[in-house]
Amino acid sequence: MNEYNFQLVLSFFSKLQNKICDTLIQVDNHSVFKKDIWSKKNCQGDTRILKNGKIFEKASVSTSDISGNSLPNTSTNKNKNFLNCLYRATGISVIVHPKNPYIPTSHLNLRFFLVYDSQNLLKWWFGGGFDLTPYYGFTEDVVHWHQTAEQICRPFGVDLYKKYKKWCDDYFFIKHRNEPRGIGGLFFDDVNKPNFHHVFSFTKSVGDGYIKAYLPIVNLRKSYTWSKRERDFQLYRRSRYVEFNLLLDRGTIFGIQSQGRIESILSSMPPIVKWKYNWKPRPKSQESKLYTDFLPVKNWINKN
Amino acid sequence: MNEYNFQLVLSFFSKLQNKICDTLIQVDNHSVFKKDIWSKKNCQGDTRILKNGKIFEKASVSTSDISGNSLPNTSTNKNKNFLNCLYRATGISVIVHPKNPYIPTSHLNLRFFLVYDSQNLLKWWFGGGFDLTPYYGFTEDVVHWHQTAEQICRPFGVDLYKKYKKWCDDYFFIKHRNEPRGIGGLFFDDVNKPNFHHVFSFTKSVGDGYIKAYLPIVNLRKSYTWSKRERDFQLYRRSRYVEFNLLLDRGTIFGIQSQGRIESILSSMPPIVKWKYNWKPRPKSQESKLYTDFLPVKNWINKN
Repeated sequence: MNEYNFQLVLSFFSKLQNKICDTLIQVDNHSVFKKDIWSKKNCQGDTRILKNGKIFEKASVSTSDISGNSLPNTSTNKNKNFLNCLYRATGISVIVHPKNPYIPTSHLNLRFFLVYDSQNLLKWWFGGGFDLTPYYGFTEDVVHWHQTAEQICRPFGVDLYKKYKKWCDDYFFIKHRNEPRGIGGLFFDDVNKPNFHHVFSFTKSVGDGYIKAYLPIVNLRKSYTWSKRERDFQLYRRSRYVEFNLLLDRGTIFGIQSQGRIESILSSMPPIVKWKYNWKPRPKSQESKLYTDFLPVKNWINKN
Repeated sequence: MNEYNFQLVLSFFSKLQNKICDTLIQVDNHSVFKKDIWSKKNCQGDTRILKNGKIFEKASVSTSDISGNSLPNTSTNKNKNFLNCLYRATGISVIVHPKNPYIPTSHLNLRFFLVYDSQNLLKWWFGGGFDLTPYYGFTEDVVHWHQTAEQICRPFGVDLYKKYKKWCDDYFFIKHRNEPRGIGGLFFDDVNKPNFHHVFSFTKSVGDGYIKAYLPIVNLRKSYTWSKRERDFQLYRRSRYVEFNLLLDRGTIFGIQSQGRIESILSSMPPIVKWKYNWKPRPKSQESKLYTDFLPVKNWINKN
């Protein structure tokens, strides 16, 4: 179980960060990422923010490498005997909030944990995934997103897509609203089998696959025009994103529990958000279709 | 300890709700509160929302009367042996988000809990308080706010203002930002001594005192003109309010834990909010004065 290579993971996350930033810049035509290299106690990171782009209202592409002597309970889904143990972790987080309400918000997170457990044995695991949050849904976009997810998983096991798709649906569920955050994707955690190189390969495929999943959707929808109505619906729906991230997201709560750099942790926040008391879309409106046709969990590609 | 009267408390909260709504409507000139009477399982409430008023962008004035058989751990600051016990609670919550960035946001909460403890003995307590969140501070406003708080406390004990002012400063502290939410006020919890009528009288004084504390500030600042700059700062600062309410506020988390009516629980959310990555005010600007002159905890009236 000890054949891990932390440097390989760090290096992959760093290259992936460059690749994703380059791709987003290319799509956004001349916009730039502001880069903040930060360090705090035993932690360091590289937070890159694009704001007020032509396509992207805000994009956050961040990596970090953190250590501590008391693993917060949000870091793992099951290994509760790892709590209060020495740990080191590295991760990449990407959140893209497009300006155009017809382009969905997307999110990628990948993370690698190393922990000395209570018997002082070294354990490692990978976790992460990607998920999509549309405002106005298009069936072909959602099918493409899930087909890409399925293609990523296929070489690693026949049932993997089904398993990680369900995990994603379960994780990104806004309990207090009884409503999924978006249309899902992949989510995995505490994965260390069969061996480091296998799980690392899978993690790399998820990272590389994120751009393949998202870019075609951005390119298809970026020329759509929108009015105040669509913008308003987007800002309203973004409040659900904030509620999920602050009330439920283990990544955000882990960051706060581990006393990380707050501006990096909350760089996922949308730039502008609206809350409307007890608002509901008109029945059969374009806005209501999100709730009736897209948010309910379903098999988008008939393979799960 | 059993001489409580739940009906008296319900009735006071209901009258206070009417009084506060009437006062806000009067100030706001022709605006109206939309009233939602709701019920859910063993809970009921009366949520009143004013939106897009002339002065108030959003005001939420709500009462509720809830029961359950498993008291969430956020309901009390200390009585952890009350958990998983039968309870009934009633409360009033007021949050006012003015349009004008020169008028502070204000908040009042009062609550009364009845619980059968693990020995099946009936316990009761009051909690609550009020606090103020300015965007642009005025010393005379903050002094007036705290003087009113001190006058409310004085008949009930010489050290009460000092104690509840400190409790408020401690409670409304945004740990992950290392920053107070506003300039404080009063906060108390788990209070049941010396007897019901004494604590109820104090609670009534806090409720009646809220309008006396807030109204003069609204009237003093409502004619101030503002530009995009002040509005932008207000929207940015409102993100701190959201972070506090979703990450730290026991009332919000209690509401969610007790599976209350989500639209009422989150009626405290500001109508429109901005997050800006790593933004800081220019040194010595009007905006920076909030951080240097108002947010740091201090003795505003030389009496604590």
